[in-house]
Amino acid sequence: MKIIRTITEIKEQLKKANGKSVGFVPTMGFLHEGHLSLVNKAREESDIVVMSIFVNPLQFGPNEDFERYPRNEEHDSTVAKESGVDLLFIPSVETMYPEEVSLELKVTKGTDVLCGRSRQGHFDGVATVLTKLFHIVEPDKTYFGLKDAQQFSVVHTLISQLNFPIELVGLPTVREDDGLAKSSRNVYLSQQERAESTILYKSLQLGKKLITEGNRDSDAIVNEVKQYINKNTDAIIDYVELLSYPTLDKLDKIDEQIILAIAVHYQKARLIDNIILDPNGTQIDTIIK
Amino acid sequence: MKIIRTITEIKEQLKKANGKSVGFVPTMGFLHEGHLSLVNKAREESDIVVMSIFVNPLQFGPNEDFERYPRNEEHDSTVAKESGVDLLFIPSVETMYPEEVSLELKVTKGTDVLCGRSRQGHFDGVATVLTKLFHIVEPDKTYFGLKDAQQFSVVHTLISQLNFPIELVGLPTVREDDGLAKSSRNVYLSQQERAESTILYKSLQLGKKLITEGNRDSDAIVNEVKQYINKNTDAIIDYVELLSYPTLDKLDKIDEQIILAIAVHYQKARLIDNIILDPNGTQIDTIIK
Repeated sequence: MKIIRTITEIKEQLKKANGKSVGFVPTMGFLHEGHLSLVNKAREESDIVVMSIFVNPLQFGPNEDFERYPRNEEHDSTVAKESGVDLLFIPSVETMYPEEVSLELKVTKGTDVLCGRSRQGHFDGVATVLTKLFHIVEPDKTYFGLKDAQQFSVVHTLISQLNFPIELVGLPTVREDDGLAKSSRNVYLSQQERAESTILYKSLQLGKKLITEGNRDSDAIVNEVKQYINKNTDAIIDYVELLSYPTLDKLDKIDEQIILAIAVHYQKARLIDNIILDPNGTQIDTIIK
Repeated sequence: MKIIRTITEIKEQLKKANGKSVGFVPTMGFLHEGHLSLVNKAREESDIVVMSIFVNPLQFGPNEDFERYPRNEEHDSTVAKESGVDLLFIPSVETMYPEEVSLELKVTKGTDVLCGRSRQGHFDGVATVLTKLFHIVEPDKTYFGLKDAQQFSVVHTLISQLNFPIELVGLPTVREDDGLAKSSRNVYLSQQERAESTILYKSLQLGKKLITEGNRDSDAIVNEVKQYINKNTDAIIDYVELLSYPTLDKLDKIDEQIILAIAVHYQKARLIDNIILDPNGTQIDTIIK
């Protein structure tokens, strides 16, 4: 595995691979099994696997955790190498943004719900940095986890509306044995919070059960899920929402593919989780666009 | 030459050309010698020459001339073929925008001057459609005329800030024998307006002469150019501006590469023209980025 820090060098390396297929896994590092499941799939499907690690300042708000977002390059390099990454691209902020940004992507729909509501401009920053990375790496396929379901929906819009010549693959959320979704931010949980946090996935399963049993009333399901969370943890709910997926529209009655998504605040970490379900409550865990 | 109307087909045609170099000339049609000079250069430098003709609704304001922008597909096809275009891509609006646009490019600097001031959102629309076209055609080089100097500056920002793997070539404004810049909108001029319109280029030459003679005072030069235009034509001045180029910042003293640019309204046509000069007044007519 080669560690590469400049745009010139990654482009040179990829030029040498001329004609071979490239699978790309963009990350913010602090790698866990969620990321590695993306690498595994890319490894299966591509000749060359490129991973990027870049904590993108453009997608963090002024009061968010850009500075203290967890970083561990040594650990990341080791696990990236072991999992089969060929080229690990770790650019600096100056490399990615050498001058004042005077042109950005702007997502104008589907951002006033879920994480977009409390993270203004977040998905604009995500779309902008991914556009840059896609142009630098020119992958055939790119891999994202469905844990960040709104992000996946934005990347889908980005690729389809701007005609990127890239296949988008969304893979299942990887979970701890007790159901907690793997996340780089889990390290911020206290012991008690970590114990309580299993409630997130359980609450999603409760929602799923209600739908499977025939409940089609979005508001009623959301309310039951909220009550369940409030009863079982001290975390403060940011949102519980049930929306069409991937269009992220509000639904009164459940009659199409939906996402049930939650975000809660613990002391030092905001955690998110979701499930995507067909109208009968069957879980969708892989999406290829 | 093949005329192609769908994204699937142009991508198929280009896939066949695998490995050959592609030169791309995006246009809004109603071709004149300005466009053909771009094709000539692309023909010299590339194995395959692709031209697109697409009048992009996204870059026209509600009170602008999208509906009545001049179109003549038969004439365009003939001259494109004669000038050496291999693939002529003429998508419909539905082909380019099959669904509601929910993600756009946003240019946040250099748009409150020149044409950007009176054409709000215009360059956002330009950047968005070019991003789509670049992803569809995947050219090695793309060619633009420097007559639309602010557009060239935006395309330069687009390509460099978003890391498009494309070389940008800016070619000289092509002029009638009497100096009027070729433009699809010249057909709207009355006979008298056409006669008077030679004043545009003459006024730019006056500005150039002042700089060559040692005048470094932007305001003074702009004022002399304005007076000269007002004295010699009934056209109404939209703007006369002298800015740094390609950064498009205001300048008190001329001490770097500049653009002197004008826009005037005739009865049925708004015409623009410009010259790019080094600080000593020498004209720059080709830019490669």
